[in-house]
Amino acid sequence: MNPALFCDPVTGVSVSDTFFSPVMETVRTRMLPYQWKALHDEIPGAEPSHCVQNFRIAAGLETGEFQGFVFQDSDAAKWIEAAAYSLRQHPDPELEARADQLIDLILQTQQPDGYIGTYYTINGLEKRWTDVTSNHELYCAGHLLEAAIAYAQATGKDRLLQAMTRFVDYIDQVFGPEEGKLHGYPGHEIIEMALLRLYEMEPDPKYLRLARYFIEERGKQPCFFAEEARRQGREYPWKDSPFRFGYYQAAAPVREQKDAVGHAVRAVYLYSGMADAARLTGDDSLYQACRTLWDSVTQKRMYLTGAIGSSAYGESFTMDYDLPPDLVYGETCASVGLAFFARRMLRMDPDGRYADVLEKVLYNGILSGMSLDGTKFFYVNPLEAYPERNRKVQELRHAKTRRQAWFACACCPPNLARLMESVGDYIYMEREGQLFVHLYIGSRAEVKQAAEDTRVEMESRYPWKGDPCLQVESGSDREWTLALHVPAWCRGFRVSIDGKEAEGTVEKGYWKLKRSWKGTHQVRISMEMPPRVVRADPQVRSAIGKIAVMRGPVVYCLEEADNGNDLHGLEMAADAPLTEIRRDDLAAGMIGIRALGRRICREGEELYRDWDGEIFQEQELLWIPYYAWANREEGEMTVWVRRS
Amino acid sequence: MNPALFCDPVTGVSVSDTFFSPVMETVRTRMLPYQWKALHDEIPGAEPSHCVQNFRIAAGLETGEFQGFVFQDSDAAKWIEAAAYSLRQHPDPELEARADQLIDLILQTQQPDGYIGTYYTINGLEKRWTDVTSNHELYCAGHLLEAAIAYAQATGKDRLLQAMTRFVDYIDQVFGPEEGKLHGYPGHEIIEMALLRLYEMEPDPKYLRLARYFIEERGKQPCFFAEEARRQGREYPWKDSPFRFGYYQAAAPVREQKDAVGHAVRAVYLYSGMADAARLTGDDSLYQACRTLWDSVTQKRMYLTGAIGSSAYGESFTMDYDLPPDLVYGETCASVGLAFFARRMLRMDPDGRYADVLEKVLYNGILSGMSLDGTKFFYVNPLEAYPERNRKVQELRHAKTRRQAWFACACCPPNLARLMESVGDYIYMEREGQLFVHLYIGSRAEVKQAAEDTRVEMESRYPWKGDPCLQVESGSDREWTLALHVPAWCRGFRVSIDGKEAEGTVEKGYWKLKRSWKGTHQVRISMEMPPRVVRADPQVRSAIGKIAVMRGPVVYCLEEADNGNDLHGLEMAADAPLTEIRRDDLAAGMIGIRALGRRICREGEELYRDWDGEIFQEQELLWIPYYAWANREEGEMTVWVRRS
Repeated sequence: MNPALFCDPVTGVSVSDTFFSPVMETVRTRMLPYQWKALHDEIPGAEPSHCVQNFRIAAGLETGEFQGFVFQDSDAAKWIEAAAYSLRQHPDPELEARADQLIDLILQTQQPDGYIGTYYTINGLEKRWTDVTSNHELYCAGHLLEAAIAYAQATGKDRLLQAMTRFVDYIDQVFGPEEGKLHGYPGHEIIEMALLRLYEMEPDPKYLRLARYFIEERGKQPCFFAEEARRQGREYPWKDSPFRFGYYQAAAPVREQKDAVGHAVRAVYLYSGMADAARLTGDDSLYQACRTLWDSVTQKRMYLTGAIGSSAYGESFTMDYDLPPDLVYGETCASVGLAFFARRMLRMDPDGRYADVLEKVLYNGILSGMSLDGTKFFYVNPLEAYPERNRKVQELRHAKTRRQAWFACACCPPNLARLMESVGDYIYMEREGQLFVHLYIGSRAEVKQAAEDTRVEMESRYPWKGDPCLQVESGSDREWTLALHVPAWCRGFRVSIDGKEAEGTVEKGYWKLKRSWKGTHQVRISMEMPPRVVRADPQVRSAIGKIAVMRGPVVYCLEEADNGNDLHGLEMAADAPLTEIRRDDLAAGMIGIRALGRRICREGEELYRDWDGEIFQEQELLWIPYYAWANREEGEMTVWVRRS
Repeated sequence: MNPALFCDPVTGVSVSDTFFSPVMETVRTRMLPYQWKALHDEIPGAEPSHCVQNFRIAAGLETGEFQGFVFQDSDAAKWIEAAAYSLRQHPDPELEARADQLIDLILQTQQPDGYIGTYYTINGLEKRWTDVTSNHELYCAGHLLEAAIAYAQATGKDRLLQAMTRFVDYIDQVFGPEEGKLHGYPGHEIIEMALLRLYEMEPDPKYLRLARYFIEERGKQPCFFAEEARRQGREYPWKDSPFRFGYYQAAAPVREQKDAVGHAVRAVYLYSGMADAARLTGDDSLYQACRTLWDSVTQKRMYLTGAIGSSAYGESFTMDYDLPPDLVYGETCASVGLAFFARRMLRMDPDGRYADVLEKVLYNGILSGMSLDGTKFFYVNPLEAYPERNRKVQELRHAKTRRQAWFACACCPPNLARLMESVGDYIYMEREGQLFVHLYIGSRAEVKQAAEDTRVEMESRYPWKGDPCLQVESGSDREWTLALHVPAWCRGFRVSIDGKEAEGTVEKGYWKLKRSWKGTHQVRISMEMPPRVVRADPQVRSAIGKIAVMRGPVVYCLEEADNGNDLHGLEMAADAPLTEIRRDDLAAGMIGIRALGRRICREGEELYRDWDGEIFQEQELLWIPYYAWANREEGEMTVWVRRS
């Protein structure tokens, strides 16, 4: 690793994008109010959350029992965090008042020793830390800490942050290498990255030490989770699973882990924390571990859409190249976590391959988690849906074919909300003398390290048009490098500056040009963005003999609404001409793709017959962006089709 | 239905077959002694059965707790039944002494009221019949009754049969429409066909009435199982499953059932009982229900090998055309049950389509359940195996890729044993003036109804050669019809009698010739049996674009031992020439198939790439009979390959 390459995100970015701004506005005006109601159990017909109710009981404002999952507190945290990001760009007194109200309520549940957590506050504080394996106390703490930091940064109000630093001090008394402390680490990671974010804000070495402790302790043998189970007279939860301690990424110390294993969300949250720790400490072997795990995830265990987690059992990774389109879990949260991981790798090494995955997961595996109107959600994001089969086959029932209003386990919708409202933080990074543009999302930003007295403004019609335009405005004549991400999918990437073709050098996935930018300059990018046919490595058993369609970063799919049912009967030549068509019926500006394919015909009713040829009938195939599926009547969907 | 068409099996058939006799001898000399040890927990390293131990405890000969599954008694019953069939053909004093000893032990557990069942005898007789849903009392009774009948018929010793008729009398006091009796039926069917077999032996109307009651009561609403759960304060076991009462074939009265649903073994055992009841009562609507369910199983829910049960969840049917080669359950017992069902349909309607399925399941889905040496078993019979994936992917872990020495739930090995030892009962059926040959298995039989004073003797090299020869010896000059099954796979079926081509008429899958057979006549059959490529109905999503290889009734597969790993990368043209080769290395006389195919090559390490063609390398594909897989080192296996 080379700390001289480290970057910081450009902060304070204001997003004004043809594609994401409507999404963010939907999140702000519909999703956050909707989720507010969900947290308050006010949505008729939806699974009750019990989240706010639990806080009210823990605060002594109501009586009753804790209800819902043990990690229900985290939904409130994610909501506050999403609201914080929204408030940065959109002052909204009503939203802020609600956030303050929720924070008030949370503060009323804090114990004298700093502890916050409704489950044990209601069920008996003496039982705290007896099930670190499963009971998510550190997970909820991590989410609350992220929310506290985001809210303080967005609004300047730090009451929650003050409370959370007290909670962190308390956690530091409970966990650590010292005698009498628990030599453990969270069953569900996230507090690692939260603590490191706190450390970046307030560089108290205690925060770094605690985060590192959680990271380094994980996977030492005998496994803390097994020991805890033994002490408590329980069975280790995953003792008969194929991954055992790997469910919690605890089968080996993190530096020795070669494969992404276990629960996919936990995994990428851990890796994100590891990446932060590697960067903040300049720890090369930890960085190498991150690279190894990145490669495992993205080169062997990631779906075309950026979804991760091949099995509903443990919501987990399975093995290299095992990427079934139907059994897939592909949790929205896992895709969000993969974006976290990508962003953290980019900070250490601005290599286009990280930005490629970031872009892939953002426009596909993450966005597919919400309906176009922002009020309905997918927890699981399959690459193939067949409603009758998804209902009747137990192994596939986790994949819904209708978007849901809410979930008993509602981690995904607020995770989407916080990601969407913070998408501006993912666009630019900078270091002394260099400004990186990772994503082509319309926005305005003030450069801080790359150059003095410099602002950039981007207009973009991405992902439908590959012609973003940056206006660079600088009052300084010092030279600095503009580095533009050249997506791996892009075969023709050209740049003109102030109307003249510009010659940059392409290095590790970035087009770079060092010059003085004094004055105002128009940097026009032109990316060829034809629809194209893609295929998987033949090691991917489920995709062999099949092809998919992409355009730019967008993965396409076939839906029954456009193509009739029995989508599995369709096939397409790999060299079939692909034509762009407008799909304003789905969303303004959306581009669909048309191609001539064919459909296999049934001949007779015999289940099996001797080979006597096959009969096909030509059929036009209408592809729509994958993320836009399941916004019409319920029906079949597939990303992969057989090549004819 | 037309009762004039009803047939009876020709009994007392002596099997002397190049293919099955060695299997039967293996069962007699290795499998039955091995299973005897297994029942006595004497096999080092194998899962203990506890079966005999439970009987000893129930008999008061030992103290201890009931161990193993609630249906463990049935393993003893199946062993006795298999031994009985073996003794018919092979007097074996040691085997008979063991059977007598086991029967002695069972009799010592019979209660004064007739009840036999170690689970409740050990755990408290007052709790009997409180969990008819799950606790298998009637299932064990059914198996014991089948064993008792078989043993009495084979040896003339009827002590177990006497005991079982007392037990049946007691069951008749417990279940029935009368006030005060349980208005229920077994959670696991089998007693229906056992009672009807008893009725055929001893035509006491009570047996018929009780069997019909169990059949007719099933599926009436409100469901008995739900009511029982409510009464006992339990949850109905499958309340959240896709099939709910369908797990027990109890979602609707049997006459209204259109689809084969739920646990596959239970289903075909029920249908077998229904078929017996329809035949014995001339009940046309019950017969039509059997036909409907037969069609559902065999035209929409059966694997190429005759395996049934597409999901490990509930070991169940899922939906039409859902036949994934990897998720499949395909329990050996279910294939055995399908043979039962086929035989019973043949008795009412000697139509070749039933014999086709009987043949298919016998040479493939049943036989695959045992190793070539008869000492190792498969419970689950997948059509695709990939050892690493079967170990690492939870949804596939039920499918083992090494044959097992025994199972905690050991229903399959003794079921295989009793089927193999009774295979002679499946070969011939007769009615006044007609003798049907369903299977070409070398054997001798005395005709009883078709003609007077007539014997047939068959020599067969099936399934490797399609040239069975029947010698018909008759002392009567009355004309009767010889009906020879023309397998659906057979394109050229010719018969010569005493060296001269014979002109028969083919009707519903049987070649028929009516004549006098006085004297001794050689009936030589010639079936063309070239290897051939088959495909599935395109509705079978998992087999679309794929082909398989068969020869005669035998389904072939590719194994890693012959073809290298990554079998999914292989493909073959549908019209590739198929060459027969000897595979004496696997079993004497076995025929393998060779064909030229190709293997897709990896190009680079990218998980996804733009389409730029594919590179293939020619490869010879070596196919072996499916049933013979997993008899060498552990490795991959597939039945279906992509067609190129």
